[in-house]
This record gives sequence, structure tokens and C-alpha cells, in this order.
Amino acid sequence: MAAHPSNNSQPPPAGKSTPRFELITLGDELLLGLTANSHLTWIGSQLGRRGVLLERHVTITDEAPAIAAQFAESWARADVVITTGGLGPTCDDRSREVVADILGQELVFDAGIMRAIEERFAKFNRPCTPNNRKQAFRFSRGEVLPNPNGTAPGLWVQQDGKVLVMLPGPPNELQPIFLEQVVPRLAQLGLISEQESYIQIRTAGVGESMLETRFQPIFDRHPGLGIAYCAHQWQVDCRISSANGRYSRAALQQIADECVALLGDDFICFGHDPLAKVASDHLRNHGRTLAVAESCTGGLLANSFTDICGASKFFMGGIVSYSNDAKMLLLDCPECLLSQHGAVSAECAVAMASGVAEQLSADYGLAITGYAGPTGSHEDNPTGTIYIGMHSPLGDWSKKLSYPGQRQTVKLRAVTAAIDWLRREVVREARRAESPMVN
Amino acid sequence: MAAHPSNNSQPPPAGKSTPRFELITLGDELLLGLTANSHLTWIGSQLGRRGVLLERHVTITDEAPAIAAQFAESWARADVVITTGGLGPTCDDRSREVVADILGQELVFDAGIMRAIEERFAKFNRPCTPNNRKQAFRFSRGEVLPNPNGTAPGLWVQQDGKVLVMLPGPPNELQPIFLEQVVPRLAQLGLISEQESYIQIRTAGVGESMLETRFQPIFDRHPGLGIAYCAHQWQVDCRISSANGRYSRAALQQIADECVALLGDDFICFGHDPLAKVASDHLRNHGRTLAVAESCTGGLLANSFTDICGASKFFMGGIVSYSNDAKMLLLDCPECLLSQHGAVSAECAVAMASGVAEQLSADYGLAITGYAGPTGSHEDNPTGTIYIGMHSPLGDWSKKLSYPGQRQTVKLRAVTAAIDWLRREVVREARRAESPMVN
Repeated sequence: MAAHPSNNSQPPPAGKSTPRFELITLGDELLLGLTANSHLTWIGSQLGRRGVLLERHVTITDEAPAIAAQFAESWARADVVITTGGLGPTCDDRSREVVADILGQELVFDAGIMRAIEERFAKFNRPCTPNNRKQAFRFSRGEVLPNPNGTAPGLWVQQDGKVLVMLPGPPNELQPIFLEQVVPRLAQLGLISEQESYIQIRTAGVGESMLETRFQPIFDRHPGLGIAYCAHQWQVDCRISSANGRYSRAALQQIADECVALLGDDFICFGHDPLAKVASDHLRNHGRTLAVAESCTGGLLANSFTDICGASKFFMGGIVSYSNDAKMLLLDCPECLLSQHGAVSAECAVAMASGVAEQLSADYGLAITGYAGPTGSHEDNPTGTIYIGMHSPLGDWSKKLSYPGQRQTVKLRAVTAAIDWLRREVVREARRAESPMVN
Repeated sequence: MAAHPSNNSQPPPAGKSTPRFELITLGDELLLGLTANSHLTWIGSQLGRRGVLLERHVTITDEAPAIAAQFAESWARADVVITTGGLGPTCDDRSREVVADILGQELVFDAGIMRAIEERFAKFNRPCTPNNRKQAFRFSRGEVLPNPNGTAPGLWVQQDGKVLVMLPGPPNELQPIFLEQVVPRLAQLGLISEQESYIQIRTAGVGESMLETRFQPIFDRHPGLGIAYCAHQWQVDCRISSANGRYSRAALQQIADECVALLGDDFICFGHDPLAKVASDHLRNHGRTLAVAESCTGGLLANSFTDICGASKFFMGGIVSYSNDAKMLLLDCPECLLSQHGAVSAECAVAMASGVAEQLSADYGLAITGYAGPTGSHEDNPTGTIYIGMHSPLGDWSKKLSYPGQRQTVKLRAVTAAIDWLRREVVREARRAESPMVN
């Protein structure tokens, strides 16, 4: 039986004084996979950055007995219980009633909530059907967290030395309520802090086990660290924390800096920025602009950049050239190149990159062509074959990659790799501008 | 206190003979929101379609005591326990060891697994570091579920009349193992079926409470139905099931057909197809092609179509015109139109739609322009103002929408609405082709 590599890599145990947070998300539609459960990711990261590792996240059915059993269990165990969903107007929204029973509270009709609901329906010119009245009930000893983006407000209860937060299910309603109303209340009670509890190193192009092998000699010199690795597509994050506060923030940063010195251009950033944000920041910092051309990734590359606020400062546009005609018409890819080398080729990738950069007067052109599958591939270029094309102030080049997998996975991996190569290229250009004699 | 609208809308209680499934996902990175937890959505939907409503999904930390406590609890309660994650090579991957203790099993080294791991590293020209050896251990009384897409295999145990399935965390590794190896084993044991347990009606453009108000008279005539609603952006799904098998599949379908008859073009489809898939099927069925032009949605519209297998049959391409220059150069938007009406205008949306359809010789041109925020908006057109432009065989038109919210939410809503209007337009064209005198 394989032993754990080293004892000093245990994450810090929760101290006695650490408040225990549990998250309960409600809904058959979550358990049936009809709706993606994004609440854990979002609430978990919001709490994580404020020093709290959520202890447990449970998703249960809409049935009243299941809600009652889970809420009673979590309420007995945790200091803060957050629930999402089950506050809506329809018959499968039962959590308000069930929780009131367990807390021994009454539900009282709140005319202010009802007015806000009616105003919302009036604003959108929709009739306010009677079942909406249900959402206007609040706990007799509790607060209302108004919901500017929907009908059901959030609910806040302090009781038995504990906190209960009930939030509506739709993310665009839940998130503003959490940030603007829940976070300040929790911070005021000293249940969350403002400071991050760990330092995260984001890396690209190194496998998880290889990264651990590289870093372990550094961690061996610093006993009592909490270390955790997390592999994404193409990326591995390493999180360094201090067990029981043995290391100061500055000491952790020094250790993290030692790790980064081993990484070279495989280091993406500290923290949580997505790769596209980091690459975009490099472009902006160096006053460079970008245009993209893509076939098999079909808009996902452009979308990764336009998800970034202020993208119009550096992003000139993109072309999804899903056919040979589109490659010739919109990107000036020569017909003879396409017939000689094919659309999935190094030559086509470079032609797409330089074509889109020229069309949109951009400094950098980034292109992807390949087979995302499951159909359309060839023996020489099976599904998952990807060519990345680069047009940059340093020159034009291409790179062939192979990502066998499902269609959307292939798309995501291709886009991630392309953005990482762009990041490396902009860093390389900037480095060369500073010291023209080195690469 | 608001009562539940009607007793006949309770979901069917789990019968005594229904096997109880629980899902445990492991990882601090999930609880800290560093990685999205897609396993619930995916596994939940796979089980749901095969007649099983997952009873509970729990996410816990990587710490051994937490894993031990949760696994013991779930193993005592459920008939089938599925775990994900915690099988990797690094020090925070502990689940194999902890679970073996609770099951009273030994972990034995499996030379076959080790060989597969070594071959995988050799194939990708990476060194196989010693910590990978840990992944070659399996339960002494259990089966190995080979992993063709990664190093850690899945593990299968039948013990105490129960089933344990342990799966690796990365979705591209987990999903094929689940479909190809776990589903057949579970079906053979009679724990899942092939048939769907409910009929789902997907609708667009109707609110959740309005939909319930429309449908309720039908459901009132059929006591003992299980009804659940699920609201997405722009869409609401209604799921109809039979409590304790009182209604046959055909009877449920008849009730669903009654509901659909009330919906007109607000009916998207039965089942689980995404809106883009439904719109694409309409295009394909009528032999029509599509090109898209987008500014604020920045590639997300094109990406929604290219996520669909075989998109090249109807999708000609897309242009992300993120600047006025791009709109003029790539879409032939007249400069005077842009200066007179602005880029966020009905006129520009229509010019983009007809421009991209012409450039790419497509039957339909679909365009989106607007302000996704948080910057760049104006008093007349605040953040969330969206214009959809349509060029179709029936003519050119535009529609103004307002979706205040966060950038990515605005993008998603705009794209969803645009695809829904495309779906309605193609349906309208097909209807007119069949009966030229009606609209």
C-alpha cells in the first residue's frame, strides 16, 4: 500500500475556533443533472478567499423529509448553514416551511416583499399569479435580504449562536445578494476575514506528479506546510498554506517565490486569474492587440477573450471560418494552400493567423484549426489533431497538438493551449524588447 | 403561511424496492471553488435518464477523517455509493486507503495497472515519477475499471449486498469509464433501467409561475402525478412523472401532449436537447444554412452552434466584430449607418445579420449587438441592452431586449434569446412553406 509522500503536506486541520460552514443546495433538477450546480463553485471560492474552507456541501431532493433531515443534521453540526433554492413560487419549493418548523419559528406575511414582487411583475408587464404570494413569507425572527434581480428574497436568521442564510437558486439573483448583503454581515460577526488563506501558484504545461517532484525538495525544508495540487486541462495549480498559522503571509510568499523560480515560463500567475486574463494583461501591458481565427473551436477562442471586462481595449475581433470558403473569403487563405495541405495543417494555421491579423490590423494573430470530432477526421490527422497558428511581432509559426477526447473537451483543450502559447509568445517578445540579446 | 398549491404535485416517493444511490465527490479544490464540480450534473443526469433519482450528493474535504466519516455514513445508508476523485498520485489523494479500511479490505499492488500507467507516460514522453506507483493499488476483493484516458483506473466493489464505484476526478476520464463499464454492470444487477422515468417539456419565453398556472388545470384532472419545474435563463422545463407507476408511459405522454397544445411556439422540445440543438435540427430538416455576426457576445453565439456534432452541415461561419472597423470591413456595415445610429442599434443589428449572411452565402443571418457591461454603456442603452438582428428568407427584422446583470450572464441570455428567435423563425418559415396562407 502506497504511503503518503510526506507528513508535512497535510492541509492545516481546522482549529477549534474556526467556524464550520455547510452549504445545502436543494433541487431534484440538480440531482437529475438538469441544471448545473454552480453554487458550490461560486460560494466555495468566495468563502475560500475569505479564509473559510467549506466543510461540506450536500445536494438533496425537493422532498420535505429529505430537507428536514439534512437541515437538522447540518444545523446541529455547523456554525453557519447556507441553503440555496427551494424559495420559488411553485409547488416543489418547500424549504421555507420545513426550516421554519425545525427552527421553531413562524412564517409571517411581509407586505414589503409582496410589494417588491408585484412591482417586478409590473415592470416586465407580466401578470403576478397567486402562487407568487408564497414568496412574501419570512421568518418571524429573521431578516429579509432583498433581491433586486428576482422575486424570492433571501432570508437571514441568527439563532442558537448560529447563522442561517437562505438564498434563491438562480445564480444572477444569489450572487449579488451574497456579495452585497451576506458577506458584510458574516465579516461583521467575525465569521469570515478579508485575507486569503493560501497562496496559489498556477502553472501550465507541467504534469501534476512532475510538479510535485520539482517542488517537494523545497517543501521538505519547510515542515508544517499545507500543500494541495489541482490539475485542470493543461494547467496545474499548487496551493500553499500554513498549518495553525506557523508561517506568516510573507514567509509563505517567499516559499512560493522559490517554487516559481523553478518554473520559468511554465509559471502563469499567483492567485485565481484565468489563463485568458493573464494573457490579456500581458497584451495590454505591452500595448499589443489581438485578432483570432478558428475553425474547430468555433468561437470558443474569441469567447474566452471577450469574457474579460474591457476586452475591446486589445481584442480586435475574430473569424470563425468553419468552411474552406470562409477561410478563403474572410482570411485570404490561398485556395492552392488549402488544396495542397488541407484545412487541418500547419500551413493553414499560419495562413489563418496572419490573415486575421492583417484583416483586423492586429499585432498578434492566433489561429486554431483541427478536428474536434467525432466525425471528419483522417488517418494522418485523427480526431483531436489540432494545429495552432501564431502571427506575432517575432514571426510566424505553428504547433501541432493531439488531444483525443470528446468534442467539447477537445475544443476546450485546444483553446487553453492556444492561449497559453500566446501568453508565452507575448512574454518572450517583452523579454526580448528588454534585453535584445537573449531569447 | 402559503400552502402548497396542490397535493397531487408531490414527486413520487421512493418505493421500498428502489435502490438508493449516493454520490460523494472529494476535494478541497471543489469546496474552495477552484474547480467546477461537474460530476453531479453529469452523473445525476445519466442516472436520472435510467430511472434513478440520486438521493444525495455530498462534497467533502480531502482530509482522511472527513472521507472516513462520510463514506461510512453513505455506505450504511445507500445501496450504491459512487465516489469521484482522490485516486491521483499526489499526497492529497487519500480515498483509496481510507475506504479500504472501512470495507475491511487490503490494497494490493496490481502489475497490470502499473504497466498501463508506465505505457501512458511513455506514450506522452514524460517520465513516470515514483508517486505514480500509488495509483496501481486495487482492493483485494474488487475489480479494476481500466482508464484509457488517464493514469488512475476506476475501482468496483460488490460487498455486503451493496456496490461501491470509485472513479477518477477528471471528467474526460470519468465519463467514458462510467458509460462503458459502470452502466452495463449496474444494469446487469437490475439497479438501473434503460427507460426514462419522466417526460420533460422544454418551454421558452414563459415564466415559471405563468407556466404552472397554464398547466395546473390539466394536472388537476390527473391525480397522482409528480410535477417539477425548473427555470433556466429564458427557458422553463416541466417534468411529469408517475407516482408509484399509476400512469403508463403512454398516459404520461398524452398528458404532456395536452400541455404542449397550450404552448404554440413556446414549446421547444420533449427531453433534454439544448436550444441550439433544436434550432439546428430545424435548420437541417429544412435544408437551411446559418451564419452569425456578434459583437458583445464575442463568439459565444458561434460556439453554441459549433458545440453541436455535425455543425459544418448547416453552420457556415461567424464573425466577431468587436469594433466598428470590423463591422465595416468584415460585414459591410455602412460607416454612415454606424455614425448615425451607433453600433448598438436595431439598424446595425440588421446590417450585421444581412452582411454576414451575404458574406458567407447563408440562408439565415443571426446577429447580436449590445452592451454586456460593465463598461461602455450609455444612458439610452444601459448595460444589458441587446439588439438581435435577423436576416431570413421571410425578411429582415430586429428585436430589442434588456438583460441587466453580470457580463457573462448578459452574454448567455442574449445568445439564448437569439437562438430561440432563430428557432421560432425557422419554424415559421417551414409552417408558411406548408400552408402559404397562414403565418
